[in-house]
Amino acid sequence: MSLSFAHITLNDLASMRSRHRAQLINALSGIKGVHLVGTRAADGTENLAIFNSVLHIGADPAALGILFRPLSVQRDTYDNIKETGEFTLNLVSTEILDAAHQTSAKYESGQSEFSATGLTPWYSADHGAPYVNQSPIKVGLRFEEEHTMAINGTVLLVGRVQEVWVPEGAVGEDGWLKLDDWNIVSVAGLDAYHQGTLIERKGYAQP
Amino acid sequence: MSLSFAHITLNDLASMRSRHRAQLINALSGIKGVHLVGTRAADGTENLAIFNSVLHIGADPAALGILFRPLSVQRDTYDNIKETGEFTLNLVSTEILDAAHQTSAKYESGQSEFSATGLTPWYSADHGAPYVNQSPIKVGLRFEEEHTMAINGTVLLVGRVQEVWVPEGAVGEDGWLKLDDWNIVSVAGLDAYHQGTLIERKGYAQP
Repeated sequence: MSLSFAHITLNDLASMRSRHRAQLINALSGIKGVHLVGTRAADGTENLAIFNSVLHIGADPAALGILFRPLSVQRDTYDNIKETGEFTLNLVSTEILDAAHQTSAKYESGQSEFSATGLTPWYSADHGAPYVNQSPIKVGLRFEEEHTMAINGTVLLVGRVQEVWVPEGAVGEDGWLKLDDWNIVSVAGLDAYHQGTLIERKGYAQP
Repeated sequence: MSLSFAHITLNDLASMRSRHRAQLINALSGIKGVHLVGTRAADGTENLAIFNSVLHIGADPAALGILFRPLSVQRDTYDNIKETGEFTLNLVSTEILDAAHQTSAKYESGQSEFSATGLTPWYSADHGAPYVNQSPIKVGLRFEEEHTMAINGTVLLVGRVQEVWVPEGAVGEDGWLKLDDWNIVSVAGLDAYHQGTLIERKGYAQP
């Protein structure tokens, strides 16, 4: 190899401090999507949480997944989805990045991350979970299935898309949403937020 | 809402052309990571394929997942992983973006995407699957488990990290890899490649 490379072995990983290892391993999945997940408990309490683990599952039927950390501690978002069946995914733009990250703070039980961060809940007539009013691209989903990873107890929860809200005129002729027009943010590792600039759309590759 | 929004319903999605719907729904997961997956068949044939569906599963033990489309057609990467147990994930930089995208072309059976695209296989002494020599950040993994999604037959395949190769000096004091130093590329939708620019590292949020 032309660059000089460092070899990180299993022994190296095992001897790292936990937070150091988490930073390193989280970077390996690249600069990735970040979403606000909106839910409501059965008693109506609203919850909003930031996730960097949303996965495209399929387009027909349209479905997206979220990986949850192990359920050994209280997971309001997960519990609300299982109780009500509904959740929203809201893309994060630079305009709401500070508030979006702030939802990851540990607020007291019963305090909504909406009121704590200044983000505003918005409800569609057709969906029970709260959207983030300030988010430019919003998706309403219904719980579909879940899978627990044997390796560490994380849970992949899959939702079926019920509706999508996008800015008027944002969907291109071929269906593409030009995300950088809406200043959509990505994240690398645990807390390094990036703004993406389009390099090129490539289309189908031919041999 | 202050912007004017378009409401896309389930009926709208159902009536879209398949490719149009795929473009739209793929954009909802945001500007996300993109990786080259290197494998080798039992007979030694090397394979390289680009994926936009890599998911961080956990840091201890370190694990990453890939979502595969349904196995109803030939999936060389999947088959090779199940045969040999090993695969590599290689982050894509701007320098190798053209070649990386080109691996998605349908080459004839037996033709390696390495020789077709000019990317060079490189082998570590400790791992059987080929790395991409030109990739700045490389991860060797071993098959751990898989989960089939009932909704559409896609398969989440989880691998346990065996080793990591990064440029000498790239790991920061707290474990963080500054990915934009290495021109790491992301993708939005199916084919829109983005370069990320760091906005800010935020650290732990406090109430």
